[in-house]
Amino acid sequence: MKALEQKIISECKILEGDVLKVDGFLNHQIDVSFMNELGKELYRLYRDSGVTKILTIEASGIGVACLAAVNFDPIVPVVFAKKHSTKNISPDLYMSKAESYTHGKSFDIVVAKEYLHENDVVLIIDDFLAKGNAMNALIDLCEQAHAKVAGVGIVIEKLYQDGGNQLRKKGVRVESLAKIASMSKEDGVSFES
Amino acid sequence: MKALEQKIISECKILEGDVLKVDGFLNHQIDVSFMNELGKELYRLYRDSGVTKILTIEASGIGVACLAAVNFDPIVPVVFAKKHSTKNISPDLYMSKAESYTHGKSFDIVVAKEYLHENDVVLIIDDFLAKGNAMNALIDLCEQAHAKVAGVGIVIEKLYQDGGNQLRKKGVRVESLAKIASMSKEDGVSFES
Repeated sequence: MKALEQKIISECKILEGDVLKVDGFLNHQIDVSFMNELGKELYRLYRDSGVTKILTIEASGIGVACLAAVNFDPIVPVVFAKKHSTKNISPDLYMSKAESYTHGKSFDIVVAKEYLHENDVVLIIDDFLAKGNAMNALIDLCEQAHAKVAGVGIVIEKLYQDGGNQLRKKGVRVESLAKIASMSKEDGVSFES
Repeated sequence: MKALEQKIISECKILEGDVLKVDGFLNHQIDVSFMNELGKELYRLYRDSGVTKILTIEASGIGVACLAAVNFDPIVPVVFAKKHSTKNISPDLYMSKAESYTHGKSFDIVVAKEYLHENDVVLIIDDFLAKGNAMNALIDLCEQAHAKVAGVGIVIEKLYQDGGNQLRKKGVRVESLAKIASMSKEDGVSFES
């Protein structure tokens, strides 16, 4: 989406360690009017996929996921996987392990079994896709539940980190509203259309 | 809202330690269609207050806040305060301390100064209001920014824990869509209308 690319260019900050900071509309302040338009686009992309549920991960995925879900017809529920802090895994939970690119450590994510079923057709939504660690964990949760993954919907994909293309090679449908081809403090951000 | 009271009665679980579990529509799975109706009601209540921004706290406040914001005319942005894990406070942040009722420990919450201004009229939204610890911290952040607080919008208030009434006594407008008067495993939930 051109409007998203322009917004990233005009509002992002590029920090040390390949971090793209978009706190002004996505990760701290949410530009709800703009994100609502992105939600409509995600619905347009997946309207024929029979989606019954949107799955995301706390915290910054929740806003995008809700603003996509409310634009579906009919509106679908959102389930957000939680970061799990205890060592004990309840038999009522699906659990998977993910590595955080930003924070450099791994964490467990969980979803209660009662909210993910084998008859669900799941659209997985997240704000960022880089190496794909969180996404692989979310897909793993769906597989544990024998739910069908309709595809993945991403606001910003860092194409050069290859997580998205690895998923595409496995046959997962990945739709990213902005694809960053390269990024540096010197040259800024460039997109692949 | 009667529909919310009925949903709580039919779907909630009451756990040890005065915990009301509403994971089925609010805190883990989000019933977006239903929450969208709650968002419309929050807009109806605050439509004449000149709200410029909705403030909430990660993670489960984000869904409600976005689904309220998208029903405002014009749509307003959402800022979510973050739980702060490091001991160093950046000069770019407002910080306040809150105690978690559910987890029994205190934590710092932060908002970047650039997203909260003295000309903002803020509606603070959260899923639960019990003793009011998180809410007091969010109001404190607004006061640090010299922003005006239009009021507070809550999905479920535990009236018997008095946090809401303490705020009302201070002159803060508090609107809760369901007010629990009492709750026990034996007798279930009863509401004050």
